[in-house]
This record gives sequence, C-alpha cells and structure tokens, in this order.
Amino acid sequence: MIVDVSKKILIVGLGLLGGSYARVLKRFGFHISAITKEQSSIDYAMEQNIIDEGSVRLDKKIIGEADLVIFALYPHVFVEWIEKNQGLLKSGAIITDVTGVKGSIVYKIQEILRSDCEFIAAHPMAGREVSGVENSTDTMFVGANYIVTPTEKNTQEAINTCMELGRLLGFTNVTTLAPKEHDEMIGFLSQLTHCIAITLMTCNDKENMERFTGDSFRDLTRIARINDVMWSELFVANKAALLEQMNLFIDKFNQLKTMLEEEDIDSMRKMMRHSTQRRALFDKK
Amino acid sequence: MIVDVSKKILIVGLGLLGGSYARVLKRFGFHISAITKEQSSIDYAMEQNIIDEGSVRLDKKIIGEADLVIFALYPHVFVEWIEKNQGLLKSGAIITDVTGVKGSIVYKIQEILRSDCEFIAAHPMAGREVSGVENSTDTMFVGANYIVTPTEKNTQEAINTCMELGRLLGFTNVTTLAPKEHDEMIGFLSQLTHCIAITLMTCNDKENMERFTGDSFRDLTRIARINDVMWSELFVANKAALLEQMNLFIDKFNQLKTMLEEEDIDSMRKMMRHSTQRRALFDKK
Repeated sequence: MIVDVSKKILIVGLGLLGGSYARVLKRFGFHISAITKEQSSIDYAMEQNIIDEGSVRLDKKIIGEADLVIFALYPHVFVEWIEKNQGLLKSGAIITDVTGVKGSIVYKIQEILRSDCEFIAAHPMAGREVSGVENSTDTMFVGANYIVTPTEKNTQEAINTCMELGRLLGFTNVTTLAPKEHDEMIGFLSQLTHCIAITLMTCNDKENMERFTGDSFRDLTRIARINDVMWSELFVANKAALLEQMNLFIDKFNQLKTMLEEEDIDSMRKMMRHSTQRRALFDKK
Repeated sequence: MIVDVSKKILIVGLGLLGGSYARVLKRFGFHISAITKEQSSIDYAMEQNIIDEGSVRLDKKIIGEADLVIFALYPHVFVEWIEKNQGLLKSGAIITDVTGVKGSIVYKIQEILRSDCEFIAAHPMAGREVSGVENSTDTMFVGANYIVTPTEKNTQEAINTCMELGRLLGFTNVTTLAPKEHDEMIGFLSQLTHCIAITLMTCNDKENMERFTGDSFRDLTRIARINDVMWSELFVANKAALLEQMNLFIDKFNQLKTMLEEEDIDSMRKMMRHSTQRRALFDKK
C-alpha cells in the first residue's frame, strides 16, 4: 500500500462528501482530522467517531501535521483557501480535491501552490440529493467513478497515491483523464443533463400538470431539484465546455423539430433507432 | 354498475395494453373476445384463460355480438379499421380506444362512425418498455391516470361507461379532459420528454462516454430506447401541440445559454430555485 496508515489525513470541508471520505478512511485506521465551518459538524463527527480531531479555526497543529489534505469545498473557496493559508501546510504534503470541474481549477492551484507541496486533482463522481456530514455514508462510492486528472506537473508517485485513495474509498472505477477531456465529458454527461432538467421544469408553468405526470417526466426532472449556489458556480467554472455541449444539443433538437415540421417520418425513425442503439451502451452492466 | 358483467367486450389488437385490459376485465366475469394479427397471441391468451374466444380474421359473430369494443391499435390502423369494417359492429355498440393522441383521432372517428354506434375516446397513461400480450399484466394500471376525452357528440351515458371502465381496470385517477387540453398536456409531459431524451442520446457520439455515466444521465435517457414506428406516428399525429411545446423548451434553453455566456449567476440561481420549487409539486404523493 502506497498510502500507509501511519499517515495523517486532513479533510477541509466536512460536508456530505468530506464526511463520507472520513467514515471510510477512519475504518482503515488512518488518523483523520477535519477543518470545517460549523462546530456542529465537528461535534457530530467526533460523536460518531469518524474523525480523531477537528476545528472550526485554522488550527496550525492540525494543518501542519497532515500528510494528505483533501479539499471538499466549493471551487472558489478552495482557491481562496490555498491563496491565504498554504503557508500552514506541511512540507511534502500531497493535496487533492473533489471539485466537479477541472480545467479552471487544476492549473490555477498548481500555479500558486508552494513548490514543496503537490496538488493532484480528482473528481469523485458520487453524490446524493441531501447535504451535510449528518447525511454522509460509507457506501456512497460503491459502483461509482473516481477520476484523477493529472497534468505534466504531477509526479507519478502523487498520481498513484491519489488513485489508491480512490480505491480505498471504495470506488468501483478508478481512472485518469486529462483535465480538458474530463471537462468535456462532465459538460455532456452531468452539466448538460442538469441544464435540460431545469429547462424542462421551468419552460411551461401551466397549472395542474402534476395530476397527469407519469414516470417519464419524473425521471427527466429528478435532478431539477438543484443546489443553485453550487451548480451555478460549476456551470460558470466549465463555461466553454458546457456551451459547446449545449450547442450540440440545440442543433440536434432543431433537426428533430424540422423533421416534425416536414412530417419526415423516415428521418425521425432513423434518429429513434440511433437513439435506441446508443442507449443500449449505457445500460448498467 | 353501469357496465354489467353480462356485456360482451371485444378487444381489437391484443398486445401489451389490450392483453392487460383482457386480464383485468376477465376477472370480473365479462365475456372477453379478441381480434388480432397473430395467431400466437390468440393461442397464448386462450391458454392463459384471459380471453373466451378470439380470431385473426374479421369474425362476424365475434364483432357483431360485442357491446363494448376497445381498440388498442396504432392511430392510423384504428382509423382504417373503422373505415373498412364498421359495418360489422352491433347496433348500439360503444367503442373506445387507447390512443395517446386525441385531437387528430377523436373528431375523425366520430365523423365517419355509424350514427347507431358511439365512440368515446380514452387514454390509459400506462405502458412498459416491452410489448406483446405475453408481457401483459393485471397490475399495470395501479397508480396510473386514465383520461376520457369527450366531445359535444358524446352522451353522458357513454362518458360514464368509459370512466367506469377505467375504474374497473384499476386506474388510480380517472378523469376527463377536452381533446385539445389532453394533447397540450401530453405534448409537454410525454412527447417533449421523449424528444429531449432521444436528442440527448444522439447529439454527441463521442466514444467511451458510457464508462463515466452516472444516474443523472441514465435517468434522462431511460426513454431514449424507443419504439420508432409508434412514436414517429404519435409525434406527427400531435404535430401542432408538440411543436408549441418544443418551442417553449428551446426558448427557455436559449435563455439559460445566454445567462451562462454572460456569467449571469443571479439569473441562473433564480431559474434553479424556480426549478426546485416547481419540481416539488411533481413528487409522487
């Protein structure tokens, strides 16, 4: 094991994800500490025995002793934290994150970070529709993807450490992607999908529709219940890639609209067969 | 009970829906007959004891004895059947259907139908991703909507009979809507939803996306596996209402795109909060 259990792990931001990380990693015997905003989160995590120590202040001892620091913060809060507080980090510390966009974060952090620390970025593709350490679980990562997004500035050792962290956390698929590829993929699979859901949910305010709603509409709008603070920030942080995916979608949707206007049944059926075939690829294996 | 069990019920088109109707109605003691395309469907239904008699031909006795005839056919096949074969119907017969679009069907059938028969249209909002009488069940309608779409040509008796049929079948919500209102509602809740799913599924053919797919994308594309023959016909049969809904969606999606281009976080957050609030209405009660 590359990440041996004598190492101290610090989690900055003890919410749903940070708390779930703590729960799983504590089981392996790591020393787990946490820095977070709310005392109630620290109290809960101490009571539940998912952290060894924690603080709502920038505790120099806790931060200075950590070998591995996991940032589970909003993107701009993460960047600000590094700008202001990186002097407190231990020399040689490896830091990683959970941010859902990469290109706009990874290079910025790597550029400003002290040269005796290393930032290796990762995106744990898991979540729930609830938040807070109180909702954290130790089973959230089973079946999910963990994507490490190294740059040419990263050492192989840090990449290996980060991938091993993903495996320890229980992710089923641990893999690497370039930041740009990651952002394209997430722009399509996750962000475009949320754009569509909130558009569908708000484009027709006619009353009483819910009386006739079936499973199809419910499926397409499950994620229309959305954290507006987080997602608006993530959309802007991935603006170029998301706009590209939105344009691909609009072009295709307009093609379908033209087919309908022209009653071009053959083209519609061809598109539907393409859709059916391609959907088969995405079935859960 | 308006529909007494001495009445003979004929189902034309013994597939998933027709078969499920037969299963439920047979339990009440009705005499159930069926006319359908494939002998194998009749054989299966006879073996399973879900019909009393059936034929793949236009059996004059079966058709001429039926008090209530349920057409479970594609829209254009239904219209053709009435045009060619209505002479075989019993005088006084009530006929109904399962067609998913109404405006383009109801008035046409009522215009061409013999004056001694009555057509009362209905839309059972239930289905599965499989087809054929072999997949029919007697539990498919629990929790689902059954919408009767009367016109000024319908008698109150026929409307009552059709609504009672819906209740006997086990639908949880049995209601009436004008054909135009029905088509707007279905254009939005069902057809637009399918247009979006097939567009999302076909707008980006990049390889290996499925390796990173999570639940959000799977939810939005579950219905992208689609019966191209049926849905292309249903789209065209509801063209005006569906185009209107597609335009509402495009307008809103373009608004969101502009917000992103301008990094207008406030407007994005407002739209997301609207989405979250409205989605709450659509939760299953």
